[in-house]
Amino acid sequence: MTDSKHPLLIVGSVAFDSVETPAGRVERALGGSASYASIAASYCGAAPRIVGIVGEDFGDGHVERLTRHGVDVAGLERVEGGRTFHWSGRYHDDFKGRDTLETSLNVFERFDPVLPDAWRDTGFLFLGNIAPSLQARVLDQASGARFVAMDTMNFWIDTARADLDAVLSRVDMVFINDEEAFDYTGASTVRGAARALLARGPRHLVIKRGEHGAVLFGEGGPLFVPAVLLERVVDPTGAGDTFAGGFMGTLARHGEVSREAMADALLAGTVLASFCVEAFSVDGIDRLDAGRIAQRRGELEAMIRF
Amino acid sequence: MTDSKHPLLIVGSVAFDSVETPAGRVERALGGSASYASIAASYCGAAPRIVGIVGEDFGDGHVERLTRHGVDVAGLERVEGGRTFHWSGRYHDDFKGRDTLETSLNVFERFDPVLPDAWRDTGFLFLGNIAPSLQARVLDQASGARFVAMDTMNFWIDTARADLDAVLSRVDMVFINDEEAFDYTGASTVRGAARALLARGPRHLVIKRGEHGAVLFGEGGPLFVPAVLLERVVDPTGAGDTFAGGFMGTLARHGEVSREAMADALLAGTVLASFCVEAFSVDGIDRLDAGRIAQRRGELEAMIRF
Repeated sequence: MTDSKHPLLIVGSVAFDSVETPAGRVERALGGSASYASIAASYCGAAPRIVGIVGEDFGDGHVERLTRHGVDVAGLERVEGGRTFHWSGRYHDDFKGRDTLETSLNVFERFDPVLPDAWRDTGFLFLGNIAPSLQARVLDQASGARFVAMDTMNFWIDTARADLDAVLSRVDMVFINDEEAFDYTGASTVRGAARALLARGPRHLVIKRGEHGAVLFGEGGPLFVPAVLLERVVDPTGAGDTFAGGFMGTLARHGEVSREAMADALLAGTVLASFCVEAFSVDGIDRLDAGRIAQRRGELEAMIRF
Repeated sequence: MTDSKHPLLIVGSVAFDSVETPAGRVERALGGSASYASIAASYCGAAPRIVGIVGEDFGDGHVERLTRHGVDVAGLERVEGGRTFHWSGRYHDDFKGRDTLETSLNVFERFDPVLPDAWRDTGFLFLGNIAPSLQARVLDQASGARFVAMDTMNFWIDTARADLDAVLSRVDMVFINDEEAFDYTGASTVRGAARALLARGPRHLVIKRGEHGAVLFGEGGPLFVPAVLLERVVDPTGAGDTFAGGFMGTLARHGEVSREAMADALLAGTVLASFCVEAFSVDGIDRLDAGRIAQRRGELEAMIRF
């Protein structure tokens, strides 16, 4: 599915997640922003390259779950004797919130992303949800990046706001959840939060609203895509990363950031995220084919094209 | 704005509301499902006819706020010596919930809707949010209704479920909030709730999601319209009634229930509801003109047509 002509560089976490939801539970399954985003991007005609760090417990079988999607893991450092980042959490009965039970950073604590020389001029770069100071270090190295998007989360808004402000001013685009956007800006409406965030530097912004869809702000007025209406949700973990990976993979394939490319990217990210939440870990996006993706996209478009 | 060729019969409450929100407060202002719905419908080319009950304290000035929109109040009973239904509530800081401070049914307690003879064959009928047993009594009289829609709320789901089940099986369409749909059906997804509700009889269903838009289910797959992205919300009271009034007014003007008419109705209801929440009481929809409505509708459509 990938095409070496459309590389997408992704820097983020590669992790093991132990997750409990109303639909069941899973132990130490593949997770992390770079895992979800790279697999998602692989379905969009992009050639994902990931930079991340794992421990000795991250075996060849785990690596193969990435490489069989064409993900280039030359930037994935494996630390001998180290243990992989482990996150454990439990979702509430209505899926609207979750509690973190345990966060073991392990090797991630010493993560100092180094871009392979050959990757420094990758045109499209996605900075997954890691510390803003690390996102900044990647930017320092990615001298040839033409379009940079970043994700973030509440933890950094609460603990590293100055770093976050700084990196926000250096990127082209931000992905952020609605609640996080409200926390970060103090605004109480999506439109108010968008104006405040765009004033900090990025030209483009996607506010993610979970089951309620996503809104793109920037040049030319907002674009909105609703989430796919699913019968059943199993595990929301990774949906935002999957969305961003599908979005950025689509932009990389287009090779430009026109409004048409952005709209295509919104739809692609939304469809991939809908598959993600139907299973635990990356299982929902592990064995997709073009037919299933196209069918669901058709259903999504039919819902808003009338 | 009205046209006597497109009558829409609306049965519901006419009330005084005292409301406090993060944006301010208002005392004993015009409210009630029939008030919001009829004013909204008046902008859609329908000729609204309302059936309701008020007290002696509902003065000519209040009546005129309806009649100057062309609302026919021949079915509005004024009880000498009685007092008008009064609801008092306070919205939470995030507008996501509200507490009822006081509900004084007053004359509404004896409401026994009687349709003027000349109105019994009104083709389009909207049963606002009143007791399901009263909705059923209206249906008994509306022998000539060609298309009937109803709204409901948690209170009736909790206290009059059997009556609600019965009336649901007799109408063509239901408007319901997402949380209410979940409560009523036990489903946890919009799609699951929709299937359960449609199985009870109605051919069409709109699940209202507040700031997240509305989804139409029924023949031909779901249609979705997002809410207008507002800078500021003042008072959400009446938004659902306004939406339903705009929706039903548009259907009445079309004179048919095609998918095209439904899509037009979804957009019209959404746009009118967006004006409603920008002010207290019916103030937001009291002095609209076709230009403002068309402009906002254009902005809404631009957000999803790409």
